[in-house]
Amino acid sequence: MPIITLTTDYGTSDGYVGSLKGVIASIAPDAKVVDIAHDIPRGDIAHAAWVIASATHEFPYGSIHVVVVDPGVGGVREEVIVRGDGQWYIGPDNGVFTYVMRPEWDAWAIDDAVMRAKHVSRTFHGRDVFARAAAMIARDHNGRTTPAPRGYGTSVKLEGTLPWGARTRGSGRIVHIDQFGNLISDLPPAEAGRSVTVAGQALAIIGTYEDVAPGQLLAYVGSAATIEIAVRDGRADTRLGLARGAQIFPAAGSSPYR
Amino acid sequence: MPIITLTTDYGTSDGYVGSLKGVIASIAPDAKVVDIAHDIPRGDIAHAAWVIASATHEFPYGSIHVVVVDPGVGGVREEVIVRGDGQWYIGPDNGVFTYVMRPEWDAWAIDDAVMRAKHVSRTFHGRDVFARAAAMIARDHNGRTTPAPRGYGTSVKLEGTLPWGARTRGSGRIVHIDQFGNLISDLPPAEAGRSVTVAGQALAIIGTYEDVAPGQLLAYVGSAATIEIAVRDGRADTRLGLARGAQIFPAAGSSPYR
Amino acid sequence: MPIITLTTDYGTSDGYVGSLKGVIASIAPDAKVVDIAHDIPRGDIAHAAWVIASATHEFPYGSIHVVVVDPGVGGVREEVIVRGDGQWYIGPDNGVFTYVMRPEWDAWAIDDAVMRAKHVSRTFHGRDVFARAAAMIARDHNGRTTPAPRGYGTSVKLEGTLPWGARTRGSGRIVHIDQFGNLISDLPPAEAGRSVTVAGQALAIIGTYEDVAPGQLLAYVGSAATIEIAVRDGRADTRLGLARGAQIFPAAGSSPYR
Repeated sequence: MPIITLTTDYGTSDGYVGSLKGVIASIAPDAKVVDIAHDIPRGDIAHAAWVIASATHEFPYGSIHVVVVDPGVGGVREEVIVRGDGQWYIGPDNGVFTYVMRPEWDAWAIDDAVMRAKHVSRTFHGRDVFARAAAMIARDHNGRTTPAPRGYGTSVKLEGTLPWGARTRGSGRIVHIDQFGNLISDLPPAEAGRSVTVAGQALAIIGTYEDVAPGQLLAYVGSAATIEIAVRDGRADTRLGLARGAQIFPAAGSSPYR
Repeated sequence: MPIITLTTDYGTSDGYVGSLKGVIASIAPDAKVVDIAHDIPRGDIAHAAWVIASATHEFPYGSIHVVVVDPGVGGVREEVIVRGDGQWYIGPDNGVFTYVMRPEWDAWAIDDAVMRAKHVSRTFHGRDVFARAAAMIARDHNGRTTPAPRGYGTSVKLEGTLPWGARTRGSGRIVHIDQFGNLISDLPPAEAGRSVTVAGQALAIIGTYEDVAPGQLLAYVGSAATIEIAVRDGRADTRLGLARGAQIFPAAGSSPYR
Repeated sequence: MPIITLTTDYGTSDGYVGSLKGVIASIAPDAKVVDIAHDIPRGDIAHAAWVIASATHEFPYGSIHVVVVDPGVGGVREEVIVRGDGQWYIGPDNGVFTYVMRPEWDAWAIDDAVMRAKHVSRTFHGRDVFARAAAMIARDHNGRTTPAPRGYGTSVKLEGTLPWGARTRGSGRIVHIDQFGNLISDLPPAEAGRSVTVAGQALAIIGTYEDVAPGQLLAYVGSAATIEIAVRDGRADTRLGLARGAQIFPAAGSSPYR
């Protein structure tokens, strides 16, 4: 039973998510559809990029991940299938795969007619392209180890990027702000050492929320195995006035873990 | 494995949706439960009517759609089962089936005791009537082509209506406003021609959001194959100050598609 | 096919819920994962306690309920497995099981290494402990009647409590406020009689919303078979200015049902 996950900014008050599930149920009735998140902020590609990187990491070999955060739907960005590490990713090439894509992975444009609805709406590729392509792959592969696909489309190189470039060693950026206002960076603990500087404040890296008093800032190794900043029972984003892209450094004199 | 979809205004912070799923899992363990939307605005029958019309259209033959947007729960409106085009619809007869119901379809009151919980709460028919009836149908039919049901209840004629009547040819109404603020009309492109007038503004019908600059209004053929009005990266509902029921016309001199 | 339900305060805009589902899909691919609610107010243990009590009641024998509303994650509260009445409950021992736990039920600390991820994040026990433990139980028991577990952990006695103590006979408390602003008490109808007093107002117990005019207060027997207070087409919580823990009494002279 192949798994198809859905991550969208469609919300849960309209029929859009339901349409995707209907398409999948019609084409690949054995597929197990798993909702990851449908309340991605509207059109927020970077947010979706982080969500799929953190969530899809846990899924079994052969899982198919549909990501529809696509403000440029119907425009020039390509619709793509990406495959690597035993996972499939399907969505627009607008940067949403930045955190999962590896240079050696394969990517295809979804330009084969069989992967698309007969009439493709200009504004609803989630239904007419992405869900359909996922269902076709699920039907073909049925959870088995995935051979090299043939006829899925033209090989492409992903072009989408996020506003911030690649991280340089010895510093990190805030790459995600979760709904609790926690600031998630891409700084690995091994580079951070024992304390970090963010928004001009030095913070020792400690264990968990309860290690500080309510309302206090803390830095810790988060669930993505990178440095996170939080306020116990509060919001670190508003406290520090930080947005994504803000920098985080090992504090001066912080000795790296060994 | 029969499919049971759920569309409610129960939200996702209470246990109401979970109760429905528990009832279904207990009666019809093989049914596949699919969430369509649980954040329908509270008691907004017209909103739910559009959502189920757009989403359930994609589901396979034999799917069972439970719709619980039911401000009159426990009052005089009838609880009904509707069947047609290989789909089942279950919910209150309050207008929620307006966009899917066809005159030749069958409808039954859910008045057979076997389709209802032994003790029916006056305020939670979602659990005690609608989910239960759906599970009973799923168990009986088990995804097979559905024969004429017997003993499901008394045949009825639906009485629920929406605030706006049937569309007259050559004009349309805004029938849905989605969470992005897009205005969805029931005007078919063939009647609209090349441009439409809405809120006193003439708008050419173009392809997709990226065909206009951010912040600009556009009209286009939407995912329901009717005319929609949107603002790129913005909200058309607040821009135009329109509510559902507002009229939309082919612009003067707009020649119909041929 | 064992059922694993999920109730969390993770919301639906991040990848946290997806991570739990990925862990379960990897360990127990046959388990059926059911979303109960993910928009529990952040850290609101009492809210979650009521939600699971009302929703899990409907689930079939052998269901496994994961509850992650855990403001003290990584701190001193114990992670536990609770079993009784053919249901499993898994989550933090912080009071979240108050409304379901019975004195004769079994409870274990999740301290066996096999039930936990190899590296347990200090802040994401949902993924590394609770989802994993649920999946291990699902895999072992596979929907069959559950024998006494061995090796699941050390037997413990639950210590978590809610801010309000046990109810005394002849009065009740508001124990839950749902998203509609309905006030749900723990006062059984048999003790309430024909009318109740709440916030200084006497209210006759009537049938359903439509029995009063829009905007009016009403008391009725709710879906949990306890007394509820609502405002038709409105919110009782703001109308009465009540919070959870507020008392509700049979009105003076109200004769109990017989």
